[in-house]
Amino acid sequence: MSDQLSLSALDGAVPFERRHIGPDADAVATMLGRVGVDSLSSLMAAALPADIRTDRALVLPEVASEQQVAAELRALAARNEPGESLIGLGYHATLTPPVIRRNVLEDPSWYTAYTPYQPEISQGRLEALINFQTMVGDLTGLPVANSSLLDEGTAAAEAMTLVRRANRKASGPFVVDADALPQTIEVVRTRAEAMGIEVVVADLTAGLPEGELCGVLIQYPGASGRIADPRAVIEAAHERNALAVVAADLLALTLLEAPGTLGADVAVGSSQRFGVPLFYGGPHAGYMSVSKGLERHLPGRLVGVSVDSAGRPAYRLALQTREQHIRRDKATSNICTAQVLLAVAASMYAVYHGPDGLRAIATRTHRYATVLAHLLAESGLELVHQSFFDTIRVRVPGRGEEVLAAARERGLHLHLVDAGTVGISTSEVTTQATITALLAAFGVATTGLDLDQISVVVADTLPEGLRRSTDYLTHEVFHAHRSETAMLRYLHRLAGRDYALDRGMIPLGSCTMKLNATTEMEPISLPGFADLHPFAPADAALGYRELVADLEGWLAEVTGYDRVSIQPNAGSQGELAGLLAIRGYHHANGDTQRDVCLIPSSAHGTNAASAVMAGMRVVVVASAEDGSVDLADLRAKCEEHTDALAAIMVTYPSTHGAYEDTITELCALVHSHGGQVYVDGANFNALLGHAKPGEFGGDVSHLNLHKTFCIPHGGGGPGVGPVAVRAHLAPFLPSHGAHPEAEKRAGIGPISAAPYGSAGILPISWAYVRLMGGAGLTRATEVAVLAANYIAARLDEHYPVLYRGHGGLVAHECILDLRQLSKETGVSVDDVAKRLIDYGFHAPTMSFPVAGTLMVEPTESEDLAEIDRFCDAMIAIRGEIARVAAGEWTPESSPLRAAPHTTRELVGDWDRAYSRETGVFPSGVSVDKYWPPVGRIDQAYGDRNLVCSCPPPEAFA
Amino acid sequence: MSDQLSLSALDGAVPFERRHIGPDADAVATMLGRVGVDSLSSLMAAALPADIRTDRALVLPEVASEQQVAAELRALAARNEPGESLIGLGYHATLTPPVIRRNVLEDPSWYTAYTPYQPEISQGRLEALINFQTMVGDLTGLPVANSSLLDEGTAAAEAMTLVRRANRKASGPFVVDADALPQTIEVVRTRAEAMGIEVVVADLTAGLPEGELCGVLIQYPGASGRIADPRAVIEAAHERNALAVVAADLLALTLLEAPGTLGADVAVGSSQRFGVPLFYGGPHAGYMSVSKGLERHLPGRLVGVSVDSAGRPAYRLALQTREQHIRRDKATSNICTAQVLLAVAASMYAVYHGPDGLRAIATRTHRYATVLAHLLAESGLELVHQSFFDTIRVRVPGRGEEVLAAARERGLHLHLVDAGTVGISTSEVTTQATITALLAAFGVATTGLDLDQISVVVADTLPEGLRRSTDYLTHEVFHAHRSETAMLRYLHRLAGRDYALDRGMIPLGSCTMKLNATTEMEPISLPGFADLHPFAPADAALGYRELVADLEGWLAEVTGYDRVSIQPNAGSQGELAGLLAIRGYHHANGDTQRDVCLIPSSAHGTNAASAVMAGMRVVVVASAEDGSVDLADLRAKCEEHTDALAAIMVTYPSTHGAYEDTITELCALVHSHGGQVYVDGANFNALLGHAKPGEFGGDVSHLNLHKTFCIPHGGGGPGVGPVAVRAHLAPFLPSHGAHPEAEKRAGIGPISAAPYGSAGILPISWAYVRLMGGAGLTRATEVAVLAANYIAARLDEHYPVLYRGHGGLVAHECILDLRQLSKETGVSVDDVAKRLIDYGFHAPTMSFPVAGTLMVEPTESEDLAEIDRFCDAMIAIRGEIARVAAGEWTPESSPLRAAPHTTRELVGDWDRAYSRETGVFPSGVSVDKYWPPVGRIDQAYGDRNLVCSCPPPEAFA
Repeated sequence: MSDQLSLSALDGAVPFERRHIGPDADAVATMLGRVGVDSLSSLMAAALPADIRTDRALVLPEVASEQQVAAELRALAARNEPGESLIGLGYHATLTPPVIRRNVLEDPSWYTAYTPYQPEISQGRLEALINFQTMVGDLTGLPVANSSLLDEGTAAAEAMTLVRRANRKASGPFVVDADALPQTIEVVRTRAEAMGIEVVVADLTAGLPEGELCGVLIQYPGASGRIADPRAVIEAAHERNALAVVAADLLALTLLEAPGTLGADVAVGSSQRFGVPLFYGGPHAGYMSVSKGLERHLPGRLVGVSVDSAGRPAYRLALQTREQHIRRDKATSNICTAQVLLAVAASMYAVYHGPDGLRAIATRTHRYATVLAHLLAESGLELVHQSFFDTIRVRVPGRGEEVLAAARERGLHLHLVDAGTVGISTSEVTTQATITALLAAFGVATTGLDLDQISVVVADTLPEGLRRSTDYLTHEVFHAHRSETAMLRYLHRLAGRDYALDRGMIPLGSCTMKLNATTEMEPISLPGFADLHPFAPADAALGYRELVADLEGWLAEVTGYDRVSIQPNAGSQGELAGLLAIRGYHHANGDTQRDVCLIPSSAHGTNAASAVMAGMRVVVVASAEDGSVDLADLRAKCEEHTDALAAIMVTYPSTHGAYEDTITELCALVHSHGGQVYVDGANFNALLGHAKPGEFGGDVSHLNLHKTFCIPHGGGGPGVGPVAVRAHLAPFLPSHGAHPEAEKRAGIGPISAAPYGSAGILPISWAYVRLMGGAGLTRATEVAVLAANYIAARLDEHYPVLYRGHGGLVAHECILDLRQLSKETGVSVDDVAKRLIDYGFHAPTMSFPVAGTLMVEPTESEDLAEIDRFCDAMIAIRGEIARVAAGEWTPESSPLRAAPHTTRELVGDWDRAYSRETGVFPSGVSVDKYWPPVGRIDQAYGDRNLVCSCPPPEAFA
Repeated sequence: MSDQLSLSALDGAVPFERRHIGPDADAVATMLGRVGVDSLSSLMAAALPADIRTDRALVLPEVASEQQVAAELRALAARNEPGESLIGLGYHATLTPPVIRRNVLEDPSWYTAYTPYQPEISQGRLEALINFQTMVGDLTGLPVANSSLLDEGTAAAEAMTLVRRANRKASGPFVVDADALPQTIEVVRTRAEAMGIEVVVADLTAGLPEGELCGVLIQYPGASGRIADPRAVIEAAHERNALAVVAADLLALTLLEAPGTLGADVAVGSSQRFGVPLFYGGPHAGYMSVSKGLERHLPGRLVGVSVDSAGRPAYRLALQTREQHIRRDKATSNICTAQVLLAVAASMYAVYHGPDGLRAIATRTHRYATVLAHLLAESGLELVHQSFFDTIRVRVPGRGEEVLAAARERGLHLHLVDAGTVGISTSEVTTQATITALLAAFGVATTGLDLDQISVVVADTLPEGLRRSTDYLTHEVFHAHRSETAMLRYLHRLAGRDYALDRGMIPLGSCTMKLNATTEMEPISLPGFADLHPFAPADAALGYRELVADLEGWLAEVTGYDRVSIQPNAGSQGELAGLLAIRGYHHANGDTQRDVCLIPSSAHGTNAASAVMAGMRVVVVASAEDGSVDLADLRAKCEEHTDALAAIMVTYPSTHGAYEDTITELCALVHSHGGQVYVDGANFNALLGHAKPGEFGGDVSHLNLHKTFCIPHGGGGPGVGPVAVRAHLAPFLPSHGAHPEAEKRAGIGPISAAPYGSAGILPISWAYVRLMGGAGLTRATEVAVLAANYIAARLDEHYPVLYRGHGGLVAHECILDLRQLSKETGVSVDDVAKRLIDYGFHAPTMSFPVAGTLMVEPTESEDLAEIDRFCDAMIAIRGEIARVAAGEWTPESSPLRAAPHTTRELVGDWDRAYSRETGVFPSGVSVDKYWPPVGRIDQAYGDRNLVCSCPPPEAFA
């Protein structure tokens, strides 16, 4: 049977592409038939305007098999030398409890989940996040914490803007502690510069500098390790009507008094050292908590408690009107993605250890630092400061490099503060062997040393007045899961409450919920990737540097740009970086007046928010009837603002899910007025391999790697938002003072706290590109577009498809218009979305970009059976709406309004206009049904009665 | 706060022990209070007879932390050199699809499940197993396959005994193909010798040897790789009224005609190369399938289709009366544990690849062998045979060692057949680079070689008349899950139907369902452990050899014996090995007449079956009133059989869950009659650290590592059943012709196909011992005994505890006597067991060792909250029984009889004597409820209407 086949043909018989792409050849043929085109290439030719099609195949490395890619990534990981990191500076070695690694970070039910916008199917991760908020709130001593920010540096920058908007009566600069983390200072400066905020970096040991200020950021303990009492500075700030932000180490706070107790208004920081791997800088969950009265100014996601249709407590995202996608150009933050997966891991670390366990870890960490400091001092070395938690600085005049080299020989990375000063931060992983090796690296004799004996006599160095006296983590959840068995069950119980990709399709328009393959995911746990400190020596990061160079190069190739930076650790940050590049370019050209950013009315709200953060004025461009950008209005706006035109931000294909014909004309028009074209890459899954923004007119784009390049959503983060630019913008890409590539140390400054942002998850996208190759990526786009058109074809007669682009086709998603139907019947998009849960689906995107519609994106990874199951469900729901229309049910008495139905309802009295079976099994009884743990949630109730920390167990009784 | 604490004290603040043991110090105090003793040591002093207590603490390595153990195991794995294995001989390199590795082998919902004795909560893994049976049945062309055996060698031995019992009219020897796998021949011989079966090894190329025979085993293709047409031998055997067994390679069967089609009565083999790692020899799922009419002779587990209370199809174990625990000394197999987890993995490999994918893998494997053979022949080397699937033999006179060394330098392991012959088996992982390296190892020039060009012209070598023409894997399940997304969802869907330890307690008496910690589990995926071939050179297995030496040493220490062999790959095999050691000892002493094995009436049925297999006669010893061995009867039996007494098999603590006072007396008595004492270690979890069978009178014991040493049950396997002996029995431990320790190559022969049995999972138990240390293991025993006594104390007033031992206490489990209650009310143990599902529990062990009772073993890993939840459920059920007793419900109308309740029932009409809520939420509504996918299953129906392969999809409509 096989005489005619070559070995190469046999080797490639089942490429990864066939595992990634759901529909096989037969299914593709069926789908093409329904859409009415004869091949995938005809489809793309019909759908995509000819003038934007790229004319050559992608130039990417030859496709590799799963085992080959796994081996290559193991080899890259092996080229990193994580050793034991004692560098500190906001990143600390930690032990991820294996039960959390295996059952959260490596478990598809957690990592494939979407952002919990549909709270009824997200109660598990919402509980985990409210645990996170409670943990942060308790440890910082402030009542309301959000459910994570991107990192400590951006959290500090967000705190600065919070201070500004919350405290309008104060003017003056934002003062930053000179002993703040260096990357925090850099990130704050990058942000402040664009927004026109003055930043003053001051040594706060002498108190607050003279003059007005809007706020102050105090690092506690300082980057140097020194612990100073922040109260005097906080009080001085308050006296001058300024707000006080304390950037605090959560582990230190188990021993040190809480910032809130000391008077702080805002606390920020990182939860990385709560069990989240170093990941060469990210992803980690930053945090922010605020005092009473500031909660409505808090950026980012906030989980709160509300009630469901049965009046029982249920979690959901609170105060969403604060968020950038609603406030648009009124927003003061563009934060969209959080770091949910990492926040879950950190919160579970606290759940598993509990307050006593955390205190024990902190005590041990401190003891090690104390013993080390004592022995170094005894040997005649000078310590820079005497009061510290985990970080000491040692003067070794002229010998700094030598000590670092000696430590590295022993597998330890230290911090070179300056030529004569070395910084050392102990951590959870520090052992007696670490101390002995450190002493040896400093040239201190260790023979006969009994560390135990020394440790019982050396005194603590925590300032007496700052020792923690207030309670924390008193809620039962932090006391009930001490055994691994109990922890495992808690994690599985929470996962069981949620609907993620492991259960079925998540047909979200604009969010590209597609396969995150195991081969892509596994390498992130390799110690070579997981355990490296972001400020480790450049030559200890050879594997990461090669991986990043590859990935940046490949992303440049596929987008048609000249340079890429993967530093932005979320799409929002990529947008900001792209706009800052445009801003930098105009300023370098002397065009400082160019500050108008045109944004089509259909754009995602984040665009406008990012523009504001980049110091631009937003001018909205109208949409035409067909949903495309109204070129006449664009022309008018360009002319009106011709001198001030900085940029246009346009999404392609548009947020309407259509390839518009006018994109090249639009680009030319804006360019002709001196503006730069920002092509938002959110919908790049519809272009990859077929068109390149850098070729058809874009000057800059950002991508969301979780959209097109398989980073899992993680329940709402992590993200990676690389920014890609044409050559003229390259000098204005993000830089970082600690970048491993020396030439990227100076520039416009960092957009993220770490040089490579979410470095630890880049192997995922790297693997995806290697596994698919150019042809595979190109085919994935075709099948994604086919799937959307197939759905449009099947559902159009039931729910009109709102917009179509070139060739009467949609791109990779389609908008189903329910407005007329809602008007006629009273059945809302909400009703349909919640009813889909009863049918076993996550809802599509609701009312974006057009209120009263549903946007559906099947992606290439859903197979035909699942797509048909979804279409069948939608058609069945249409039948239910027809019964409402026919007067058989009122909207209120219909199963649509009562959706989703819970088991709790099933066992109660049933006085409804439809049967129990219709309620919960509308497409037939299934033993595999997903049961929502709560009924429909009352959003407004929760905002009126804001509770953002764990409710007492009795609330659920 | 910590000035007084040493670093060592801080380091050890949260030892692994606290994560493993559920109850913390407060809980232990509460439980002690309820039991009425003041400390754990008082409890053990009261419960355990003084004369068996060990007088010194365990001597084990100092306890290590989780990260330390993980590092040690990584170091051990790194000392193995798996390279690429081309050794063949029944073990082949394979690619485990990552989605299966992550979501089966590494997923607690699969690996912590129990044997599916409670089918209502096991529908997921039963479906996976019926897929396995269908896969084996289809590929072998025989209608009924079981759901795995321990390995290919023992499967062949089981086939031999099957042939004997199924074919009583035939006499004469069992003929074994000289080209059978060498380890198969060895295992068959070991088994046959004890059972008095003559084995003749014959070259079958010349046809069947003259004379009578009961059966013949043909290897297809042969161990040498040669493919001979087996039809002539099969027909000759049939003509002489003998049965034909074909040992076949499943991958080869995708290209070669099925044994069943060729006339075979029985097929056996291994499914290892279907995605299951080499694991240095195991665990892997062996298989057996049989022709129509032989199904009732099939050993091992058999999954069949029956109907549930709603008349719908449901899976469950079929024909259980065949099994050894019921047939006892009438049994002809002692097989109990299967290899469920590995069978699931192998079946999912077939589901994921489908028939086309498997055929493609086989074709590629064959092509590589063909191209290699062609090139070697062309270079002038002689091939031993010309027709092969994947294995060739090459004559290299006098150069065998040299070629192997040259290959090993290139990372390849080959098979040295003899000094002048080398064997090479290609596999799924073979690449063109492998071929080039192989050619180089043989000294064949490779410059300018174009393998692709060669491969299109070289002809296949499969015999024309044996090319597969029959279909296989036509069922939809093998065609519906081609994308990783679809596969992931299928795996999660099946897992969602099952109740495993990740959901809650599995309080099974005698089965010790306790924590399998992640740190213990993770290392088995390390390539150094996973990818090593069992016959790799001894110096390529240094890590494994050290690990085994450690583990055997530690097990000897904790059991008080002198020598341990970890070769037996299940408890049943450990039993057999132990009895064969006794037999060997008596025979060596010239006491060949000593063949009586005393077995107490309460013993597990496997004991008797093992004794029969070891060629012994079973004599049952009565139980006394209190459940202990009736010493008077024992004395009488000893005297009656004094000359013939070979051994007694006794479980301690007894299967009644009590520490009996008479164990030392019993041992002395048997010894005085010249018998050996076999202490079954099934209940060793109640002794570890407190008493040692080797000290209190045992001569030999086996342990079940999944019982006491944390190997996960995996849904019914894998197992490890080490045998431990006193010095005088050490010469009679299992040996193996390919053992890496030269001194263990000759002896009584192998009990398992691989020298170290289930080598690949030994890191789990190794890690457990390292993590717990002597003190931790000792405390675990105490808490396990405390937990059982706590349950006995809480439940005794509701359900009388049947047996108590020393001090009026139970050991690690307790028997709840429902007989009186059943008699009075008509509520059976079945009713209670199934009702527990509604309460969210797996049932305890039912009617073992006493019919009409439930046996409960909480283990040390369940925390007090879960134990109390269980006790509360049992008490609530007692309340329901009271309502039956009071006449409020008849047994038939009660929720007990209708249990378990499904969601299907909930949505239907409800005409019952209790509410829906009482039915499904008897302890209150819970959003985390486990929903059984089917109602109570009719066991008898399925046996009357035997269906053991996948039913058509319409059956579920």
